[in-house]
This record gives sequence, structure tokens and C-alpha cells, in this order.
Amino acid sequence: MTRPYDLVIENGRLHTPSSSYQADIAILDGKIAGIGAHFPMAEKRIDAKGLDILPGLWHVHCHFREPGHTYKEDFASGSSAAAVGGVTMCIDMTNNTPHPTSLETFEEKKELVAPKAYVDYALYGGGLYPRTVEALAKAGALGIKIFNTRHIKEVYPYITELGVLDHGILYELYEATRDQGLVASVHHDDPEWCKRITFRDFIDKGRTDARSYHDSFAKGYMYGHGMVAGLAASLYYAKLAGVKLHVLHLGVMPEGANEMIHHAKFDLGQDVSAELELGTMFMTREQMEKVGPATYNWGYAPESGWKTIENGVADFIVLEHAPHTYDEVQPGWQDMFSIPLGMTGAQEFVPMMLNAVNEGRLTLNQVARLAAEAPARRFGIFPRKGVTQIGSDADFSIVDMTREVVFTKADMLSKAGHTSWEGMRAKGAATHTIVRGKVVAQDGKLVGDRGYGRFVPGTAARA
Amino acid sequence: MTRPYDLVIENGRLHTPSSSYQADIAILDGKIAGIGAHFPMAEKRIDAKGLDILPGLWHVHCHFREPGHTYKEDFASGSSAAAVGGVTMCIDMTNNTPHPTSLETFEEKKELVAPKAYVDYALYGGGLYPRTVEALAKAGALGIKIFNTRHIKEVYPYITELGVLDHGILYELYEATRDQGLVASVHHDDPEWCKRITFRDFIDKGRTDARSYHDSFAKGYMYGHGMVAGLAASLYYAKLAGVKLHVLHLGVMPEGANEMIHHAKFDLGQDVSAELELGTMFMTREQMEKVGPATYNWGYAPESGWKTIENGVADFIVLEHAPHTYDEVQPGWQDMFSIPLGMTGAQEFVPMMLNAVNEGRLTLNQVARLAAEAPARRFGIFPRKGVTQIGSDADFSIVDMTREVVFTKADMLSKAGHTSWEGMRAKGAATHTIVRGKVVAQDGKLVGDRGYGRFVPGTAARA
Amino acid sequence: MTRPYDLVIENGRLHTPSSSYQADIAILDGKIAGIGAHFPMAEKRIDAKGLDILPGLWHVHCHFREPGHTYKEDFASGSSAAAVGGVTMCIDMTNNTPHPTSLETFEEKKELVAPKAYVDYALYGGGLYPRTVEALAKAGALGIKIFNTRHIKEVYPYITELGVLDHGILYELYEATRDQGLVASVHHDDPEWCKRITFRDFIDKGRTDARSYHDSFAKGYMYGHGMVAGLAASLYYAKLAGVKLHVLHLGVMPEGANEMIHHAKFDLGQDVSAELELGTMFMTREQMEKVGPATYNWGYAPESGWKTIENGVADFIVLEHAPHTYDEVQPGWQDMFSIPLGMTGAQEFVPMMLNAVNEGRLTLNQVARLAAEAPARRFGIFPRKGVTQIGSDADFSIVDMTREVVFTKADMLSKAGHTSWEGMRAKGAATHTIVRGKVVAQDGKLVGDRGYGRFVPGTAARA
Amino acid sequence: MTRPYDLVIENGRLHTPSSSYQADIAILDGKIAGIGAHFPMAEKRIDAKGLDILPGLWHVHCHFREPGHTYKEDFASGSSAAAVGGVTMCIDMTNNTPHPTSLETFEEKKELVAPKAYVDYALYGGGLYPRTVEALAKAGALGIKIFNTRHIKEVYPYITELGVLDHGILYELYEATRDQGLVASVHHDDPEWCKRITFRDFIDKGRTDARSYHDSFAKGYMYGHGMVAGLAASLYYAKLAGVKLHVLHLGVMPEGANEMIHHAKFDLGQDVSAELELGTMFMTREQMEKVGPATYNWGYAPESGWKTIENGVADFIVLEHAPHTYDEVQPGWQDMFSIPLGMTGAQEFVPMMLNAVNEGRLTLNQVARLAAEAPARRFGIFPRKGVTQIGSDADFSIVDMTREVVFTKADMLSKAGHTSWEGMRAKGAATHTIVRGKVVAQDGKLVGDRGYGRFVPGTAARA
Repeated sequence: MTRPYDLVIENGRLHTPSSSYQADIAILDGKIAGIGAHFPMAEKRIDAKGLDILPGLWHVHCHFREPGHTYKEDFASGSSAAAVGGVTMCIDMTNNTPHPTSLETFEEKKELVAPKAYVDYALYGGGLYPRTVEALAKAGALGIKIFNTRHIKEVYPYITELGVLDHGILYELYEATRDQGLVASVHHDDPEWCKRITFRDFIDKGRTDARSYHDSFAKGYMYGHGMVAGLAASLYYAKLAGVKLHVLHLGVMPEGANEMIHHAKFDLGQDVSAELELGTMFMTREQMEKVGPATYNWGYAPESGWKTIENGVADFIVLEHAPHTYDEVQPGWQDMFSIPLGMTGAQEFVPMMLNAVNEGRLTLNQVARLAAEAPARRFGIFPRKGVTQIGSDADFSIVDMTREVVFTKADMLSKAGHTSWEGMRAKGAATHTIVRGKVVAQDGKLVGDRGYGRFVPGTAARA
Repeated sequence: MTRPYDLVIENGRLHTPSSSYQADIAILDGKIAGIGAHFPMAEKRIDAKGLDILPGLWHVHCHFREPGHTYKEDFASGSSAAAVGGVTMCIDMTNNTPHPTSLETFEEKKELVAPKAYVDYALYGGGLYPRTVEALAKAGALGIKIFNTRHIKEVYPYITELGVLDHGILYELYEATRDQGLVASVHHDDPEWCKRITFRDFIDKGRTDARSYHDSFAKGYMYGHGMVAGLAASLYYAKLAGVKLHVLHLGVMPEGANEMIHHAKFDLGQDVSAELELGTMFMTREQMEKVGPATYNWGYAPESGWKTIENGVADFIVLEHAPHTYDEVQPGWQDMFSIPLGMTGAQEFVPMMLNAVNEGRLTLNQVARLAAEAPARRFGIFPRKGVTQIGSDADFSIVDMTREVVFTKADMLSKAGHTSWEGMRAKGAATHTIVRGKVVAQDGKLVGDRGYGRFVPGTAARA
Repeated sequence: MTRPYDLVIENGRLHTPSSSYQADIAILDGKIAGIGAHFPMAEKRIDAKGLDILPGLWHVHCHFREPGHTYKEDFASGSSAAAVGGVTMCIDMTNNTPHPTSLETFEEKKELVAPKAYVDYALYGGGLYPRTVEALAKAGALGIKIFNTRHIKEVYPYITELGVLDHGILYELYEATRDQGLVASVHHDDPEWCKRITFRDFIDKGRTDARSYHDSFAKGYMYGHGMVAGLAASLYYAKLAGVKLHVLHLGVMPEGANEMIHHAKFDLGQDVSAELELGTMFMTREQMEKVGPATYNWGYAPESGWKTIENGVADFIVLEHAPHTYDEVQPGWQDMFSIPLGMTGAQEFVPMMLNAVNEGRLTLNQVARLAAEAPARRFGIFPRKGVTQIGSDADFSIVDMTREVVFTKADMLSKAGHTSWEGMRAKGAATHTIVRGKVVAQDGKLVGDRGYGRFVPGTAARA
Repeated sequence: MTRPYDLVIENGRLHTPSSSYQADIAILDGKIAGIGAHFPMAEKRIDAKGLDILPGLWHVHCHFREPGHTYKEDFASGSSAAAVGGVTMCIDMTNNTPHPTSLETFEEKKELVAPKAYVDYALYGGGLYPRTVEALAKAGALGIKIFNTRHIKEVYPYITELGVLDHGILYELYEATRDQGLVASVHHDDPEWCKRITFRDFIDKGRTDARSYHDSFAKGYMYGHGMVAGLAASLYYAKLAGVKLHVLHLGVMPEGANEMIHHAKFDLGQDVSAELELGTMFMTREQMEKVGPATYNWGYAPESGWKTIENGVADFIVLEHAPHTYDEVQPGWQDMFSIPLGMTGAQEFVPMMLNAVNEGRLTLNQVARLAAEAPARRFGIFPRKGVTQIGSDADFSIVDMTREVVFTKADMLSKAGHTSWEGMRAKGAATHTIVRGKVVAQDGKLVGDRGYGRFVPGTAARA
């Protein structure tokens, strides 16, 4: 070879879902070109001595709010926060204005975000009209995201418009998604239940402050049992339709959901996966009381979440990123049922997860599986991404397991302007976020280029 | 004892859920006063030599159409058909006009039907308003019947009005029913699914004739998979609320329903029961093709029904009685989706069931359990009814297992004026229907008195 | 009727597995001839006002030690103890000398015990030789009892000789028992395991005193995990052979046994039943420490036993009666592994069980099922026994739920000369034990005749 | 790097358990030193264009008969057959003379086989004496192999001596194996059952010819239901002891075994794995009839085996290699119960497995998992072996999926001198077997050196 490699990462320790080993990595043209020791010719070298190299980590639950709500976040701010946090690949959700439920709006979104992304990204197609699923798939939707929900006070117009509550439509979306070979990713719910019970026991009684909301969350009201009932019906329809179902918000749902998924997966052999929201394990009571309306979930029963990793119910892990501005959420101290709900997570995800590794709750091998290989495989992007393998995209999250970080508003790149994790500490953080061979963030600083991030189409995209 | 018994039944063979034995029965004041051999002093004697004596059989799924649709059926015609068929106790449904969903309409119905019944009866309270459940219970509702459904073309105004599709309301009905200690009996559905799929694949394609409808039934459209999805959510809510759930229309639902109930009952320990619709085992393809719109279900997969008896998923058996007039259903030959659906069963139930006994598919002991003791116990009417025991109501269905009957319109007492089973033969029929010691039908003739039948209140009735 | 009844029981409250009701009972020629109110002509009357009338209770696990070890117990002493306790029917076990494993020894036992029994009884055939099972069945064995065990120090020659440890023989016994339509009742074990582990951790370390033994019991050594492993294999063979399996000593086995039976019964649909040893719920730590070697089991985890009643794993309940003399067991204070193990229960069974009813742990209806109807049905003796029904044997256990008893050696009729329950109190006791219409014990006194008890043959007996 | 690589494999397609990709591989000092394109400096190059490169395949069930029965096979002949077939790593069993059950005999075996192996190998320690397990583990045993069996006619003295039938000893072996962190690999059985039933229905009736034997196999006699019953008990003990259990001979056992393992693994969460014997899917009736006593199993119900791969019950796959000489097995045509049972598989394994890939029953990715990564991981040899990763042993099975082979005695390197698969064809065969960077077999010819194969110690070996 006469041409030098573009980048060589030296002396680091690689982690796969099944093992850990020392090896240098050579990158050429954005792909992993060589693994081994050593590669003398390189344009650039990174010395990863003492560092751990993970396959580029995915954040599978991003709301980058574009188009339509770019005052909360946009693709540049959101993806830069992810990049700085250590994420190389984001999956963006669909509750935008307009929402990407048709070929036109999906293409519009693709065009809008393309010049802004700092890391690679995929876009869910908005599942609302069965007849548009094929076009969305052909246009590159990674999967079809379905909001089988509606906010009980309609405070999210952009969710309510997307709400697929009619199970006939839901089923046809499953059929159409199956025909494209894509995964249907569903936020399950039964909002009538949630609405009625929550009004009755909380809102109508004037119990609307943040603490009341968080009580209602722990009781399985907001959100909760309705989600599980929605899941129950959805599992049946998904099996009938033969679609690959991906269950969102595991952990947020009460434990009955875990039992249902276990039964479907292991006793009935259904093709179903689930992503675990780590907030329900990491958000302590203290932090929840401190940030109040700046988080919509908290860890009132964290062990049930950990158990889903152990028993195979959880396939992915994520710390949801659904930002709203500080001003939007502050009224929630008084009436949390009337504000948009969400939390930040793009930048905090990797450190919080590494902190759990340091606490012995996870291994780096599990991280490589649950936050890289598993989503890549589930969505058919494997082995292009999700794995440290020749020919795969040279995406890496290099981390220093000894680095300590404190989350503070000042450091956050999200437009939200605040963090749900304000003041919390984590041990373990990314040193380099490398996307297709290029360092896009280093030591907490954004060093990549706006627009560098590429769109990763789903498996049904037109060639 | 100086006073003679009112009635003595001699020389018959009694059947309980667990055994069969020879014994005379003495009746006094409508109650079983003595069991054994023999009772010399009696006002009246029945020689049951060669006959089989079952505890009075329940028909648990009657639509006697009163008030409001008495041109189809009324309590007199319906209960006389049941009486002649061998039934001593009927449970009447709630899709009337007005429907008995409030104290006033429930009391109105009680008053209207009281002078007409030939056999004893209980009334479901109409589950529509959580706040009226207590009053219905106190007024004597046996249980709360919930129509978690709506006809896809709205051809049943009286069902649609009763449709509880909002799961928040459904859940509150469960809570209210639990508070009264009653059973919630639910026709599960997910009518949006049914509507969309059936329109798409049948109605919109002009496939509306009777054969098309019956194809749609066999495919799980009308009714079908939507019912199972409805059940999935309902099981979860019922468990959460802690209500006793009774699942209607087992057999009508595709097999997935059976698996769900088995899982809930035996793996999760839920308090759930189910009633098996025998039409789905007895209605042959030939008969279905012959009567077309005069039946809404048929036995395209009868073994799955029999299996629910064997494995404990089915608790009761019944042949649904949901009559419409001949004129109402005849347009169904052309467009069966636009007519009211139903079938007759009050008069045919016992012979069809006994025919299955003669064919070796059931035993008389199972009949005593599935059509008498089990419903009496489930609804808390045991041991007042459902059992041949001292002090219990002297209700008996005396049957001749060798008698052959052919169902013909001419013999039917239902106002419907036709039978879904026209021309079919059954071996085994009632000789005497005895309600509280009085013979109300004998050898196919009505001999009882209109208004003799008594209202049997549920367990929460005011003393 | 011109002839008066032999006995009329008046004013009592009858209890069936499913209900309770007030009725007089008339008895003629040992059979229940009438149930109801009232029967004026009677040779004898019992006023049961305030008393509860149960179908004659079965003691399904008696070791009356005849022939061969009549210094511990004989059929007269054992059955009189049972009678006084409130038991009307005993099933006797087979570890005698000679053991009833052949036609000759079984007939010999039948002859020996016939003149001595105070209550009715059935005899297990000794399952040792597959080729003799047919003869035992034809001679009236109720079922085939198999000791799939051996004492680890061989201190029971009469058990060791009966030990069927070879699974080939066990399987052939299952085949032969299936061919006769009988139930195979098995004391499961894996004595090699028990022996090795118990010697290693207790006996070889000199830990042999009573407290050590009871520690070993609580740890699942003596007896314990070996029994569960034996059960695991046996369930498979029984299913393969198609034999009705009856599992003895539920409760004595660690909880894994309960899970296995639940899985076999409810998930795999196997024809298996089990009898729960109540000692493992009733024998307190205090009592165990007081009587030491006079009991071989104790209630270190009583809730797991109660759960088997609730979830349907337990079909019968019993308080095992396996007496040894006081002198035989006293050396157990020093070395409990070298003495014959057992406990008394024939006389204590009913009061202890009624005490549990008074404590709200059981109902009289459950007692009627678990200690009368269920065993009668399982062994095919129903409805001859086990039920209060016309034509059935007039067996009754009349009890006074308010009577308090204290168990003391002086009151015990067992030849053992002591009781495992010395000093314990129970509220609830039999007032009349009635076998085929004759009072055999009343108010704690034996009033029946030696030899009155009759042999009840199993279902395969020669006509 | 100034030093050239020892070997570069170019242009091939690599297969991992989760993906397939094109990459060159560079090897240095027996390790994988580089993966990628391309490596200009190399002592030797292999052009793998059009070929598929699997991680070195394991044969996990070898009987190389040394010491003691080297007339059947020895480590040189056995491992050369494996090498030529495409296997890079063998696990050898323990039924030798003397058997490696003590430190002395294990070390003796290690010394004997060391100069002979053509491929790498691990040795099971012979599980017979709980007290020697620690020494075996420290001496490098990969796991502890336990023969929980005994031939029914004792024709294998070397198995019978190893038979651990006493469950007390079995349990202590589990404890000791657990203490060393090793896997207990068990050939389960209940030989008493097998012996009794097989003698009764076959041998004692003179039905001893090969066809009768194979009938007995299909009926679950030899071997069969006894193995499942043994497994039932063993699963319980293994869970109690907390040992990692590895179940041998899946597929050979009737289907009940699969259900048991599924229940243990997925419902009870037990740490259990299983290896599927492919002979039970590949050995056709025709072939079985042709070779008669030269195979002990055959595929009478192959789908049940395939299902274990699909549902996760099977963890490894293998074609057992248990050779006997032609002269030893020929008398089996007359009396197959009196000959040593076995079959050949070392050389045939890979082609037969690849043939199944060509038939669409397996993928090369599954092969990489089931025959390389999974055993390496289960025994703790991962990532040293079982994976194509930097630093791992450079073990590769390079295969040509289009090459057709016919198995004939003349080509077989086994000392057995015959093949169970004589005359069968397979499409797919190894072109290069590479062990630690050295080609040991190429295009069906042995090119490696005797003694090159290295001993791979288990995880508890002394450093």
C-alpha cells in the first residue's frame, strides 16, 4: 500500500459484545480498513493508551425537533450535544411540524437536517397513513415510528396529530411496514385510560404540581398501565400481521409490560424487541425532586429495569432525549400536566451509562451490544455500523472510564438550555467521538463540522 | 311430617358434576325438601324411570329483547322457548331500548318482564356509567354486562349506544363492579380494527353476501381478531382492578383468545372465567350454507372449542340466543354486513348439547357443571340454584336421552319465527322442565304460567 | 315406607366441597337413604344442632403396622385412634412384614386386619414386582404404593426391602398399574443423594442429635432435594407410561417439587395428583424442639404448603400417621439418623385440620374436598364414599367447631403410647364418627365394634 | 513494521456469528495480527478468492481413544482426520484406559497425546471422584465430563468404570466443578431403565440385529427415554449446586428433553447449555440400513433437532466421533446390543454441516456461532479461540461451498478404517485448515506436523 491511512487509533482496548482486546485500528476513506498492530503510515494518529474503544454508540431515541420546533432543539444543536456526549449515530423521531408522514414531508425533513448534522443519523418515517409507508420506506426511513398515544391534555399538538389510536390503522401500518421489511417502533398507550384516571385522581382534585405528577408516574398513571394495555393489543396484532415489532419506553411502563414481552418472545416465539429507558434506573428521587418538571420519568423501581437486561427482555438501552426549553417546563412546578413532557439525554447518555459500568451494573461488552450492535442489527444497518469490523463505518466512541463529569447547564449544547441531570456526577466519559474516521468531538469539545453527519437510510430505500 | 310433598320425582337418575345416582326427589314449597327413596305422600308424582335428571339448566346468554324490540322476542316468548327446550333459568342481556343502565331503566325492565317469564331469570345490569353500577347492583343486577363493541355499520343502535370503547370507562366499570363484588361479563372487541379490515377486504369490494360474511368470520374478521386484541387489554385492566372477569363468546374468538385466557388463569393466577358458544362447534358448513344470514357464527374449527372444555379454559357452555325476525335477516343473503346479526338457541340449546353427549363429546356430569353449577357459582347464586341439594330451588331439567327431535320453524316458540337450526336433528331432549317444583314445560309443550318465573337478584342486591 | 330408618341425623349443617346447607339425613342399611327435612321414623336419632356434618373424612396415609410390627400399632389400635379422631376411612400403607407385594401376602394381610378394623379401610398393594400388580389389583388393592426410597442407614428393613430404586422396575410398575387402571402412589426419593450428603455434612461430623436432624430436614437433606430429583424422573416416566401418578409427601419436599408438579399438571396436561402433609404446616419449631425425635418433619416454611392448596398443586391433605414406640424413638435425641422416623397423626388429624379452619386457613368446604371427595374420586371409590349423596355409604364426621382439645399421651389410642403433638391445643373436634350409619366413636370415646370396619377394594377388584 | 507477516489470507469472505464481510487476514506468531486490506509483506500468502473463511471450527465430541484403545484411533489418526475434514480444535472425551480421572492419569494422557496432535485440543477431565476435580481443573481440564450411564450389556468396560450413577456422587461432582468454575458436561442416562426395557422387548426376544437396534433407538429405548429421565434429575441437582451444566447428546434424546431444557433455560433461568448431535438429522434411513452397526443413531425425526437450533435449546452442533474398528462393529449385524456403539464424524463433520448450509438449513453465520464461538465462550476459551479477532489464535477453516465430496473408506484417516457415511455425498468442504497460522490440511490432504497441535487448558489451570 502506498497511500497512508487517514487515521490510526493506537494502543486502545476494543470492546465487542462478546470480548475485549487490545488492537490498533486503521481507517481509510471513512471505513475500518485494518485492525491489528501496527500501522506505520497514517495521516493522523490517536493514542488511546488507557482508553476504551467502543463501536460507535447509538442514541436511538432523539427528538431533535426539526422541523417546526427548532427553538427547543435543532439538528445541529441536538447532534452536537450527542457528539460531545460520545454518540456517533442518532435515530430521530417524527413528532415535528410538519411531521414526516408523507414522501414530501419526509424529503423536506431530510433536506433540512442534512446540512446540520454533526453525527450520522437515521430518520423514522412517521407512521400515520398506511398508504404512505411504502414511499417513506423507499425514501429511506429506518423504521416506522408509531405514536399509539395522545397527550391527555392535548398539550402536544405535534404528538396528537400523529396519534394512531385506531387499531385498524395501526394494523394496516403493521401490514405495510411488514411488506417493506422494516421494523415498527411503537410508543404504546391507551390514552383514554390514562386521561380518565389521571383527571379523576389528580387533575380534577387539583393535584397538578410536579410532585403530584411524579406520584402519578410511580402509580402507573402518567404514563403507565395504559401503555401496558396498549402493548397487550399491539403484540397480538403485530404477531397476526407478521411485522417486526419494536417496543419503545420499556422501563417507563409498569412491570406487567416486561412479563408480556417475555411471554411473547420466549413462550410464543414472536419477533419482538424492546428498548429500555435508562432514566427509570438513573433518575433518583432526589434529582427528580430537584429538577421537577424537567424530567418526566424517574427511578421509583429501578431493579425491574435491570432485570430486563438480565432476562433478555431489553434489547437496546437509551437515555431518551426529548428536550423542551426551560421556560416551557417551569410552569410544571405548578401544573405538570399542562406542560410538554420530556427530558434531556443526548449529551448525558454515554456518561450516565459508563457510570453504571463503573458501578458494576453493566459491562462495556453489554454497552457494545445494547447501544451499538443490537440497534444496528435490528434495523438492518449491521454490519455497516454497530460493529468494529473491516469495511464497516469507522465509528468509535473512545472513552476514559476514569474521567469524572458533573452535568451543568453551562456545558450543555442542547438548545433546551438546561439538563434534567443538573448537578449529577458520572464517572466515565467520551474522549473522542469518531464518525466515519473523523473526530467530531474531543474531550467535551465539538470539533466536527456541521453537515458532516450523513443520513443512513433503512433497508427498503431505493438503491 | 303430616303435610304431603308438593311433588315427588321418582325412579330417575340424577347427575351432578361429579357423579350419577338413582334417587327420588321430594319437593315442598318450591325447594328440594328430600332426596332419597322414597316419599309416599305427594300431591303429584312424576315417574322418571329411564330418564335422566339434571339440575335445572341455565341459559346464560339470552337476548329476550325487552323492552324495545319485542317484535323480535319478548320475555314471554323467549322464556317459553327456553322452557320448552329444557332450560329453567335464563340470564338476559342488556341491549334493549331503553337499556337497563340506570336504576330507573333497570327497574322499568324488571317490572315489564316480571309478569311474563315462564322460567326464572336474572338480569345483567348494563355497564355504561361507572356511577350507576352500585345502584344496579343494589337493584339486583346479576353482574354487569359490558359491550366493549360497536357494529361496524352501526346497524344495532341498541348495541352501539351500549358500546364501552373508552378503556378509561371500562376500567372504572371494573372498579365499580369489583366494589360490588359482582362479575363483569364482557363482549370484547376492538371495533375499529374489525371495521377497517372488513370494509377494506369485503364490503368495499362488494363482497357482502352471506357466504362472504361467513368467509370473513372464518378469517377472523367478523368477529375475530379484534375481539382477541380487546381481550388482551381487558385482561390486564381486570387484573389491575381486581375484578372478577367473565369472558363472553369464547369459541367465536380465534384461538389466540384461548391461549391468553389459559396464560392468565393458570400462569398468572387471574380470577377469570369464560363461556363457550357451542354454535362454533355445532353449526356445520352445510347448515350455515342453508340458513345463511340466520346464523352469525359457524364451526369452521370446532376442535379448538372442544379443547377449551378439556383444558379448563371454558367454564360455561351455551348456545347463544340472539333472535331477529326472518324478515330482518333475509336481506343478509345479499348484504349480511347490513343486517342485525344473531341466531336462535334458547329452545335448541339443550337438545343440541344432549346430542353431543350422545355423540360422546360431553358427559351429563359435564353438562351439570358447565350449564348449571358453574354459572350458579360464578354469579353467587349457588347453592340456591345450580345444584340438587336440600333447600335449593327445585329446578330440574329431566331429559330423555333417546328422544329424537328435528328443529322446525313450526315448533319454535321464539317470536323470531325461524330457527338457525332448521332441519337439523338432535338425539336427546327434555321431557320436563321444572322450576321451583312446578312443571313449566313437558314433552315439548308449554304447561307453565306466564309470570311464574321469578327474578333472581345478584349478590349485591339490597336485602 | 313402613320400615323406620336406622338412623336420622337432625338439625346439622352439611358441608360439601362447594356449599354448606342445613338438612336432616336418614340412613338405612348403612347407606344414605334420604336427605332433607324431616324423617319421623327412626330407630335412632342424633341431634346435630350447632354441629357441622362433613362427609366421612379419609385418612389417606396410615401405617397401621400390621402384619409384622404390631407392637407399634395394629389395625385395631390404629383404626380406633382414627375413629376417635373423626376419621371414617383409612388407607393403609405397605411397609409390613411380610409386605403385601404378592397375592398371598396381600390376602394374608386382608384376613389379618379384617377382624380388627373400627372404620372402613383400603389397602395399598405393595409395588415391588411388576408381575404381581395384576393379582394385587384383582385382589382389591386400592392403588399401588411404591417406595422409591431406602433409609440412608437401613434402619427400616421393611422399607428397604420395598425400595424400588431401579427405574426400569419403577417404569414397569407404572405400566402394570396403568393396565389395571389404578393409581400409582409414590414416595419419591433419590436415596443415594440423601445418603451421601447427609453422611458428609451431618453423620460423619457427629451431628446426629435431634436438633441436627431437624436442621438437616430444613436444609432439604433428610428428606428433601433427593425426593424432588426422584420426582423429576418419575413424572417423565409416568407420562410416558400413561399411568395416573399420585405424589406422596408434598410439603415434605422442598419447593422445587411444587413447581414441577405445577408445570406437569397445568402446562403439560399430565394426569398427576399430590397429597399435602399438614405436619409441614402445623408442627411449630417449639413443638419440634419439645418432641424431638417424635416427629420427622416440621414447619420451617409453612407458607409454601398453603400455597399448594391455593394454586391447585395439592389435591388431598393429610396428617401422616407413622407411629413408632416411645422407646424406639427416644434414642433419637442422641442419634436421630439411627432410629425409625415417623410421627403420629391418625387421632390428631381432624382436630388439627379443624383448628386451621378456625384460624381461617381452610374452609369446611375445602376439608370436604381435600379430605373426602378428592381421594374418593382419585381412587375411583366415588360416589360410594367421599360424598353425602343418596346411595352412598353413610359415612359422616360430625364436628363441633367450638370444642377445644389438648393432645395428651393419656388420651391417645395408638399403641405408640405417645403423640408428636403432646401438649398442643386445637379448637374443633369430632363429636361423632359414623361409618355406614353406625356411630363408631362419640365425644372422644370409642363406641364401635372391632371388626366393623370393612375393606374397600379398588376399582380393578374381581367382582 | 519491518518483519513480514507469517501468513496472509487474501480475498476471502469472513463469517462471524453475526455477519459476513470481505477482508484479508495477516498472521504473525500464530496470532491474528491484522485484519483488513491489504498486507504487502508476508512469508506466505493464500488466495481465498471465492472461498469462505470461518473461525476455526471446533469438534466438541471426539473420542480419540488414547490411551488404551489405540487400535481404534489414536490422537494422531483422530486429529489428522479432523484436520483434513476442516476442524481446528478438538475436545477429547475421557473413556480411555486408564481414564483421566486423577491427576496422574490426566497428566499421563496429556503427555501421551502431546506429540501426536495435528490440531489444537482440549481434554475433559474424567468426572468420577469429587475429590480429584480440583486437581484435574488445575492440571488444565477444559471441563468435567461425566458419564451418567453404563452400557446395558457392559460391553464398554471403559464406560462402565466411568459411570456415575450414584446421584450423591454426581451432585458432589457438580459442587466440585462449580468450585472450579468449570462446566460439567454430562451424558445423561438412567441405564437401569434402558437395560430392563431393552432386554424385555428386544434382547430377550431375540431381536438383536442391527435393524432391531435401530428400531429400539427410534422407540426411545437405546438410547432414549432413560436419558431424558436422567436429565430431569440432573437439571434439578445442577441448579441446586449452582454449576454450569452442559447437556450432551441433544437430538439423541427424545423430544421431552428439549422441552425440559427450554423450561429450565427460559422459564427458570438456569445456566444450562446443550450440544446437538447432527447425526440425528443427517443419517437417513437408507444410510442407516446400509451401514447398520456402523452408526448408533439415525434421523428418524430430524425436524425436532432443527427446532432446537431455532428456539435456542441447542448451543453447539457436532457430528460425534466415536470410532470402533470395522471388525468390532460387524457382529452388530447379528447382535448390535453386544458391540461397542459409535460412529465416525471427525472428518465428515464439516462437509456434512456445509451441505446443510447449501440446503438452506443453516447459515455460515450460524456455523460460526454453533461450532466455534459458542463452545469457545462456554468453556472460557474465548476470545483466545472461536473468533476472528486481533490477538486470537489464527485458527481458520477455509471452505469451498461448491466442492463436492463423497465419503469413502479409502479417504478416511481414522484408524477405524470405515465411515458411517460411506457413499454419502456432501456439497461444501474445507480447502485449508489453519491452526495458529499454519496450514495443517489442504484440499483433503494432511500437510501439518504431528505434534503441532497444542493442549488448550481450561480456565482453572494453574498459571
